[in-house]
Amino acid sequence: MKRVAIIGGSGYTGGELARLLSRHPDLNLVSMTSRQHAGSKVTTVHPFLQGFVDLNFEERVNSADCDVVFTATPHGASMDIVPELVESGIKVIDLSGDYRLKDPGTYKKWYGAEHKDLKNLEKAVYGIPELFRKDIKKANFISNPGCYPTCSILGLAPLVANDLVEPDIIVDGKSSTSGAGAELTKATHHPACGSSISPYKVGNHRHTPEIQMALEKVGKGKLDVVFTPHLLPVVRGMLCTSYVSLKTPMEKEEVQKTFAKFYQGERFIRMTAVPSMASVTGSNFIEIGAERAGRRTVVVMSAIDNLVKGASGQAIQNCNIMLGLEERTGLDFPGLGV
Amino acid sequence: MKRVAIIGGSGYTGGELARLLSRHPDLNLVSMTSRQHAGSKVTTVHPFLQGFVDLNFEERVNSADCDVVFTATPHGASMDIVPELVESGIKVIDLSGDYRLKDPGTYKKWYGAEHKDLKNLEKAVYGIPELFRKDIKKANFISNPGCYPTCSILGLAPLVANDLVEPDIIVDGKSSTSGAGAELTKATHHPACGSSISPYKVGNHRHTPEIQMALEKVGKGKLDVVFTPHLLPVVRGMLCTSYVSLKTPMEKEEVQKTFAKFYQGERFIRMTAVPSMASVTGSNFIEIGAERAGRRTVVVMSAIDNLVKGASGQAIQNCNIMLGLEERTGLDFPGLGV
Amino acid sequence: MKRVAIIGGSGYTGGELARLLSRHPDLNLVSMTSRQHAGSKVTTVHPFLQGFVDLNFEERVNSADCDVVFTATPHGASMDIVPELVESGIKVIDLSGDYRLKDPGTYKKWYGAEHKDLKNLEKAVYGIPELFRKDIKKANFISNPGCYPTCSILGLAPLVANDLVEPDIIVDGKSSTSGAGAELTKATHHPACGSSISPYKVGNHRHTPEIQMALEKVGKGKLDVVFTPHLLPVVRGMLCTSYVSLKTPMEKEEVQKTFAKFYQGERFIRMTAVPSMASVTGSNFIEIGAERAGRRTVVVMSAIDNLVKGASGQAIQNCNIMLGLEERTGLDFPGLGV
Amino acid sequence: MKRVAIIGGSGYTGGELARLLSRHPDLNLVSMTSRQHAGSKVTTVHPFLQGFVDLNFEERVNSADCDVVFTATPHGASMDIVPELVESGIKVIDLSGDYRLKDPGTYKKWYGAEHKDLKNLEKAVYGIPELFRKDIKKANFISNPGCYPTCSILGLAPLVANDLVEPDIIVDGKSSTSGAGAELTKATHHPACGSSISPYKVGNHRHTPEIQMALEKVGKGKLDVVFTPHLLPVVRGMLCTSYVSLKTPMEKEEVQKTFAKFYQGERFIRMTAVPSMASVTGSNFIEIGAERAGRRTVVVMSAIDNLVKGASGQAIQNCNIMLGLEERTGLDFPGLGV
Repeated sequence: MKRVAIIGGSGYTGGELARLLSRHPDLNLVSMTSRQHAGSKVTTVHPFLQGFVDLNFEERVNSADCDVVFTATPHGASMDIVPELVESGIKVIDLSGDYRLKDPGTYKKWYGAEHKDLKNLEKAVYGIPELFRKDIKKANFISNPGCYPTCSILGLAPLVANDLVEPDIIVDGKSSTSGAGAELTKATHHPACGSSISPYKVGNHRHTPEIQMALEKVGKGKLDVVFTPHLLPVVRGMLCTSYVSLKTPMEKEEVQKTFAKFYQGERFIRMTAVPSMASVTGSNFIEIGAERAGRRTVVVMSAIDNLVKGASGQAIQNCNIMLGLEERTGLDFPGLGV
Repeated sequence: MKRVAIIGGSGYTGGELARLLSRHPDLNLVSMTSRQHAGSKVTTVHPFLQGFVDLNFEERVNSADCDVVFTATPHGASMDIVPELVESGIKVIDLSGDYRLKDPGTYKKWYGAEHKDLKNLEKAVYGIPELFRKDIKKANFISNPGCYPTCSILGLAPLVANDLVEPDIIVDGKSSTSGAGAELTKATHHPACGSSISPYKVGNHRHTPEIQMALEKVGKGKLDVVFTPHLLPVVRGMLCTSYVSLKTPMEKEEVQKTFAKFYQGERFIRMTAVPSMASVTGSNFIEIGAERAGRRTVVVMSAIDNLVKGASGQAIQNCNIMLGLEERTGLDFPGLGV
Repeated sequence: MKRVAIIGGSGYTGGELARLLSRHPDLNLVSMTSRQHAGSKVTTVHPFLQGFVDLNFEERVNSADCDVVFTATPHGASMDIVPELVESGIKVIDLSGDYRLKDPGTYKKWYGAEHKDLKNLEKAVYGIPELFRKDIKKANFISNPGCYPTCSILGLAPLVANDLVEPDIIVDGKSSTSGAGAELTKATHHPACGSSISPYKVGNHRHTPEIQMALEKVGKGKLDVVFTPHLLPVVRGMLCTSYVSLKTPMEKEEVQKTFAKFYQGERFIRMTAVPSMASVTGSNFIEIGAERAGRRTVVVMSAIDNLVKGASGQAIQNCNIMLGLEERTGLDFPGLGV
Repeated sequence: MKRVAIIGGSGYTGGELARLLSRHPDLNLVSMTSRQHAGSKVTTVHPFLQGFVDLNFEERVNSADCDVVFTATPHGASMDIVPELVESGIKVIDLSGDYRLKDPGTYKKWYGAEHKDLKNLEKAVYGIPELFRKDIKKANFISNPGCYPTCSILGLAPLVANDLVEPDIIVDGKSSTSGAGAELTKATHHPACGSSISPYKVGNHRHTPEIQMALEKVGKGKLDVVFTPHLLPVVRGMLCTSYVSLKTPMEKEEVQKTFAKFYQGERFIRMTAVPSMASVTGSNFIEIGAERAGRRTVVVMSAIDNLVKGASGQAIQNCNIMLGLEERTGLDFPGLGV
């Protein structure tokens, strides 16, 4: 039984980590921190965890007490906390955007500030197990991917890795509102978003370089990713529809075989004709489908639960790998379906 | 052509007033104020009005320039503004809660503060045209009812006015989120409300005494109203399900005849088997249905668009009456239906 | 490891049973039947179960092969199947409405047909564990309650059992659309229901006598239940708002203490200020809150996942009890929360 | 006052035509037909039209009685009805897909049947006023465009007409469920679609060749349109996100100027940073925005009400033009905004 802590546990990903950990047989949640709520019961913020998490929020975590720490802190805050944690020798999984972009210049361009922890930025392993499992196994520090990147990268990796497509990639992302976090915003005010779909941050969302970086690592050359996020009137889940151009003609069946082969044996990847957000709700699965359209386009559709495979579930999957546990431990249950 | 102004035009009811006025043949919107947005174009706050409202928000309204002013200011703010407007001799319609509760003691109990304008509180006519048309006709100052009260009072008035029911009245209200206004709140954060219905302010919502007051005015004695509001994952519209006990046995048909007779000739009231929120969306109509259940219960269902009949549409209906216009002017169009 | 089968497994409750059984440590799902889909893989109908349920739908179940059978058949069909199953000596849990109303006359009145299996109708134990656990323990045949009844009965039982309230009871129910089943209907066509709440079967829904029957069993005398169901634009979950009149004055705190005492030690019952549908989504929990309003009204709010505590989860809870397993086995995880 | 009839008036577009005609000052709805509902009041099918449409559905229309007929019949049925109507000399506007694809071979490929009325197929004018106004003015027979085509073509036309972009065009469409019609389908069953977005008919939706045909007419050469429709959990409205590659580099401002110039003076086209479905709900407006992304991509976003500008509103706009009325007559009101 390993001891784990969550730093920054009052948001949606913190609550989701606790939800998933509450049923994990080999991980024991011993501490959650929240500056704002220190001293209060965790269940005042996450009432659905009553009967499952009997902790009070603490001011800070004592790393000597834990084997693993998840940092679910806001962007910019993680890099103040991570150095000391990594130094202490425990395993660390950061769910913020702080360590995702390997290149400090790219980081500065998209996050608008200098990176303050170049040492661990270099050290951080980008945690998509299905693509980078070997590195994760050896890692002490994981940068957990964003939800849109997880969803789109896993959908596109088989085509990019096999060098089948042109470098111009379009990702049309559709996210539920929980992806925007617990903080109140105009965009997520129900009257503003409850009966429509809205594009936002068109051409300048921070997940753009993240998608591009990871796909370039998987493939052979430079890419040009165009990413358009949209906000859905849905509380949980995400769909990405991605468009790539085949270098040489391929039929749908060939394309689909490429996917099947690439992901053979992957527990959490399910190839399907049309991915369903409902099928993966609450679970760590991703559903992926691919179709041919037009002269040479492949349309890749992929669906995840943004809080699970898109955040806390994948974080635990990474944790399992780092600790040498069976990768699916505590995550091996189906989505709601309806 | 009468000249009208809206004070406090940046919220949902302000925008809705402008939307309805933009197609009103006899009312000309000449000014909208907003402290926060003074100087900006109205369409920066209400972009859907581009091409229809070509005004900038002003700091304050010049009452000498208008025939009618709508005050769509927050509760507590109206009573600072109304006295001077009424004094100036123009017609005033207040959409806030400030002048709805006739009794200053009741006001203080439910709004938590002393009333500051007892003179106009006494003068204010509670503006539900189908019940209080005569008074509205003679009025210079209208207190425009709340959305829940409009919806439930119109549903219950025929039974109460005919003294058919016991004094214990239950109103189970279901409102869309636009009823909560444009201000960001935890309750209307999409992830918190987008996939559920939630009761709120159970037993202590300010519309309780308002419903009771108006029904007591319509009926013969003291009532005991229990009102439970719920927040729906819907942007526009409202349904109230109300429960009353018959003093003497009546069949459904008799009950329905009572309604038909009571509302005969009322343009905006539509009796129906099952009221539909979609049928009234965007319109000034109310749909009302009544069923018998149990030993002696009448279940009254009523549906409105909370921003139209529940606020701005009814305000214009009141305005039409006060000005001696045909009551349905500018409001005589159907809801969206789908 | 007990062997269980599901008869009528192609609907939502069938799929939900399979979802829950897939993670149950002591129950092994060995067979699912569906006339319409016999021969097809279960996952063609329930694709979210890929990787968890590797069965083909069968024409019929061989009761000699199972220890327990769940009948998730339509109303009217169960009473054709149940007699033989019960006869065979295995445990049977029926999720239809066929065996819920003990009195054959009441059954005929509300279901419009003669009951065909009076022997088992008498034998059937109405399966709400928190109220009828002793009987369930000794039973071989359980009639699993409806979703609205489960939600409202558990909310009202403490007050009725302690004889604190008048016999007139109002239940205002709000259900998600999955409660209406997988069959296409006008009412559940998205354009018809996706942006509104609609009352239906007002005064004549079959759950009315079921609620009344169970509460009369819990309490001391005859009741008069008025029940109004509403359809919500939500896929999963249910809220009931119930209204009762206190026989003698009680403060809110006293009322709440009554609930706390009545349900002390119940794993799946959570008392809360305001029940949350999201908190229980996907889980077997019910959240209950009670408030005082008006002169003598208690407003009871209760929220469940209609497919879990309102159907398949409670069925498994009953199964656990009948088999002498720890009651929470396979069900002890929190809801999604967001 | 011109006399108009609707053939096939029981669906959503039929109801919407009636809604809009009810407030049109120069068009008088004199007849609606429906085979299924002949003899019934129109308001039994469209209850929201009570007080506005006092007609019974008829079996068939007498063309001698009307100046204009709208055929809102299903695909395949229009071409049985249109020849006689056109022959009779009245103006005809067909809202089905029957006359949209000019090339009979393309028609056969995408609709799976031979076209039965080649004469009128050739004669039909494709009715997007902002692009083909001159032809519409002279026409007697209009083929009214599909919703996705209207939304995406208007978004892309300025770039295609000015020959600024490569022939590969991607349209990612998101439609509300009313676009799928009133017929019950598995895809529009609320539990199946109420909490997710789903792609459908990927690579083979009939609107693909329609979009391509109209844009080729506007532009200079052959195009390759890839179109992916998605079903939203929204009742009304549509958003299209389209992707094109610039032939030569352009900044965002230049792109936006191109749009502004192209659509100068168009009443129903509103350029905006981010199009809003809510802003156009219930109205005939389209909102269009354009952004630059990646090396050379332009992202065009466009939003309409699928039942108004995407169907019945545009049909009336076409009708106004054909009859020589002011184009905006009966359509000049803003969307709901909230």
